[in-house]
Amino acid sequence: MSARRRKFWGWGYEGDILSKEELSWLEETWAAFFGVDQFEVTPPPTVEEIDLPPPRLSIPSQLAAICTTEPYERLRHTYGASFPDSARAFARDFSHPPDVVAYPRNVQEITALLDWCYAQGIVTIPFGGGTSVVGGVEPPPVAERVLTIDLTRMQRVLEIDEASQVALIEAGAAGPVLEEQLRPGGWTLRFFPQSFEFSTLGGWIATRAGGHFATLATHIDDLVESVELVTPRGVIVSPRFPASGAGPDPLRLWLGSEGILGLITRAWVRIVRRPRFRASASVRFEEFEKASEAVRAIAQAGLYPANCRLLDPWESLGSGLGNGRQAFLVLTFESADHALDPWLQRALELCADYGGATESQASESGPGESHRQGAAGRWRQRFLRMPWYREAMTARSIITDTFETAVTWERFPRLYEQVRLTTAQAIREVTGKAGWVSCRLTHVYPDGAAAYFTFCALGKKEALVQQFWEIKRAALNAVTEHGGTITHHHAVGRDHRPWYDRERPMLFAEALRATKQALDPRWLLNPGVLLDPPAGSGVI
Amino acid sequence: MSARRRKFWGWGYEGDILSKEELSWLEETWAAFFGVDQFEVTPPPTVEEIDLPPPRLSIPSQLAAICTTEPYERLRHTYGASFPDSARAFARDFSHPPDVVAYPRNVQEITALLDWCYAQGIVTIPFGGGTSVVGGVEPPPVAERVLTIDLTRMQRVLEIDEASQVALIEAGAAGPVLEEQLRPGGWTLRFFPQSFEFSTLGGWIATRAGGHFATLATHIDDLVESVELVTPRGVIVSPRFPASGAGPDPLRLWLGSEGILGLITRAWVRIVRRPRFRASASVRFEEFEKASEAVRAIAQAGLYPANCRLLDPWESLGSGLGNGRQAFLVLTFESADHALDPWLQRALELCADYGGATESQASESGPGESHRQGAAGRWRQRFLRMPWYREAMTARSIITDTFETAVTWERFPRLYEQVRLTTAQAIREVTGKAGWVSCRLTHVYPDGAAAYFTFCALGKKEALVQQFWEIKRAALNAVTEHGGTITHHHAVGRDHRPWYDRERPMLFAEALRATKQALDPRWLLNPGVLLDPPAGSGVI
Repeated sequence: MSARRRKFWGWGYEGDILSKEELSWLEETWAAFFGVDQFEVTPPPTVEEIDLPPPRLSIPSQLAAICTTEPYERLRHTYGASFPDSARAFARDFSHPPDVVAYPRNVQEITALLDWCYAQGIVTIPFGGGTSVVGGVEPPPVAERVLTIDLTRMQRVLEIDEASQVALIEAGAAGPVLEEQLRPGGWTLRFFPQSFEFSTLGGWIATRAGGHFATLATHIDDLVESVELVTPRGVIVSPRFPASGAGPDPLRLWLGSEGILGLITRAWVRIVRRPRFRASASVRFEEFEKASEAVRAIAQAGLYPANCRLLDPWESLGSGLGNGRQAFLVLTFESADHALDPWLQRALELCADYGGATESQASESGPGESHRQGAAGRWRQRFLRMPWYREAMTARSIITDTFETAVTWERFPRLYEQVRLTTAQAIREVTGKAGWVSCRLTHVYPDGAAAYFTFCALGKKEALVQQFWEIKRAALNAVTEHGGTITHHHAVGRDHRPWYDRERPMLFAEALRATKQALDPRWLLNPGVLLDPPAGSGVI
Repeated sequence: MSARRRKFWGWGYEGDILSKEELSWLEETWAAFFGVDQFEVTPPPTVEEIDLPPPRLSIPSQLAAICTTEPYERLRHTYGASFPDSARAFARDFSHPPDVVAYPRNVQEITALLDWCYAQGIVTIPFGGGTSVVGGVEPPPVAERVLTIDLTRMQRVLEIDEASQVALIEAGAAGPVLEEQLRPGGWTLRFFPQSFEFSTLGGWIATRAGGHFATLATHIDDLVESVELVTPRGVIVSPRFPASGAGPDPLRLWLGSEGILGLITRAWVRIVRRPRFRASASVRFEEFEKASEAVRAIAQAGLYPANCRLLDPWESLGSGLGNGRQAFLVLTFESADHALDPWLQRALELCADYGGATESQASESGPGESHRQGAAGRWRQRFLRMPWYREAMTARSIITDTFETAVTWERFPRLYEQVRLTTAQAIREVTGKAGWVSCRLTHVYPDGAAAYFTFCALGKKEALVQQFWEIKRAALNAVTEHGGTITHHHAVGRDHRPWYDRERPMLFAEALRATKQALDPRWLLNPGVLLDPPAGSGVI
């Protein structure tokens, strides 16, 4: 539906794949790591070779202009962007696509779509950029008829309140789309999740996405002033206040609602002037434990770095840094208002207290390029390309995934150690070979940190999804057993349900269920995400 | 029930009243202001002269140790600390006291109390420090039988996690009680609402109270890591994470629940090291409008002052500052970690951009006393004594009250002007005399500010409550008409309901109602606060 088509089986646009150089780096690195001579490579699927079940819905004529049953569209809306999604795509397994995909352009059309779903009992899945890594957008296999509503035709910046530094933006706008509209006025949202290029404002709000700020505005939650939500019962617009103490905050009920209470259609979000000052440094530590104590000291000092990313020894190695025992901290302060040298100096003093050696340091004003250069730049480049590497790895039966948590400082050292151990052990048991496990701290708080783990394992082509889950289950069990939340910013979806159900207070689940019943009485919206429909509801 | 008894008719402890000097300052100032020779003074009530309706409940023997029907206790739990509460106390009007007051010491006793209330259909009112200014703790007149549960016997600091800087504190602890227990370890919560001496941690959480921090941790919300809540359906303990992205945040449902979903019994809250560095200044502006633009610039610059209190010309005059046109800004940065001169310097540059003249400036390390001296010190002293002045004013038929809101910067100038005008006009119409209206900005955000208004009017002894409401209704209508929330941190209670009901999205009310039904199916907890019980529930 646009000039460039997104791949239905992987990241980005059709034709946009790894370069020859990237691919040979990938093959050489992982062949050496796993000790294999050559990888068997599965080619990506084509639309034609997929055996797609016929749609079980016929589109009413008044909705024909915004609905489609095109095979490509149904395939592209079958999965998100997790490893099992990638593995199933390469296995040509698209057995549960949505029956129809809709592209509404406004609230009226969404209301018409919901009316249709309600009249017919059609399961409804809100879809933003399709970058969920937790099964947040896939049709439940047992659902009888499924409509996926893709919001990406609603992507305008509608209004900017310059005095209050807030913009009203349609929820289907992806990162570059909204930044492009904000730029002419000198504004930016500066919310940069890894999925930035494709994920949407509405998706961020629905999943409480995490951006690149390591402190303060760590989640989209902190940038949202007001939300418009279309529920089967009608439209909710939360009032625009900079803050309010009037009862439980309505916004906080929609933030993280993952499409089960309604479709987020627009939001007022806090924007900022583009930063003009940057002060940044890269710090080397001989021990990860000391490094994490330094990061804790920074988090508790009230300095609020924009970036405070601590790479463990393996994460460092993977970025071409260190000797396999050292840890590296990337520290950045940024401001549109003032130079930040005193802030950075104090943070570096704290690092030195814990044995941190400053490797490089820069302070600049103006547009600034330092974050694109040196170690930080290399890391950034790898980080941004990661989703493209994923599909090349799946094609070679390399299971690769990330999972993330947040945990108090007191519990962090043990969680880190145990999760690493457990994951490495599970990889060995499941695949018979050692795998890769690395960790970085992405966001830091006075009372704890968000830890982001990556693992890679050489799987068996026929059993990738099963092997993945055996490893991941062990890893996630370790995370929650050691006091971590099941997700700091990847959301719950369908995949994290067992752990979410355990960490969520039982009576809060009842409160959420009661809310769901009030707003979506037929339980048609994204069933299975966050909650299961009541027995006998006939939904799934 | 303690060595010193709290007044049942006013602020603080029995015998703790204004000094002779304070009283003559008060009388002279207001006699001159209102142009009266002498005030008629109503003496405060005594327990003996109140015609108290007999209790309509008999205490079951197994609860006898923690329940009382003592007249003093019933009187002290009849009202909060608003002007109508004060006026009704001076009018000897205690027609709707609770029938019984309970002082549980643990969750088991609270559960036993709730079981009794549920078996008998007794309306249950959670009570902390009794400092509500919005009718949050008074028995509804139509309730047939009322039990008030006072949490102040649960006031221990139970545990401190030093690495994560978090403490587990029982909800009945008032400010000084918890600070005293934190102090030996060098810790502090640094949450200083005006009611600090008496209001409790549980009350703060239930009402989303505002502390003294002007930026970042403006509300108790920002300091809470986890809450224990006892509902009629059982106990809810939210998990301890520094942050989580797993579904809508359960904490945010209890924050601001104002006693309608359960009783908050304990919480893990973020504590800090006592600040060692302070940098502060007082800045004079010739125009309030320019001053508020300077404050906006500071709020949008990412400097995060601890204090950023802007006094309008009348508020300044009331603090002995300025010529009646000038505005004064009190600016403080504080840290336990580092000196803050660069932060303060940049904020003062921004002030200068808007014509602000620095009147005084101090930077210090160590315990620090500057906030207790000079203009800031005078203001602080007046601020802390304000609740005591209130009762002396009520005794003289001076209606005095405060109300507060938060509004986006774009809307602020007009809201400020219109609320001032409307309130002044209402005072004149209702009382036939000019009154006092002043405003200060207490908390600032990138997208707006919290504005705190004070008004005084000379009322008629027999009609104080009615006159108060005529003025206040006009003022609050103006606040919400011009885009302000009905409360930034005073909460909703029963008094703010009409405006809250209008600003709350209708479908959010339904979600809240569904949650209430799930957790308090007989609607016995604090009925009338936030929500009305369903018709035919028989509660009120």
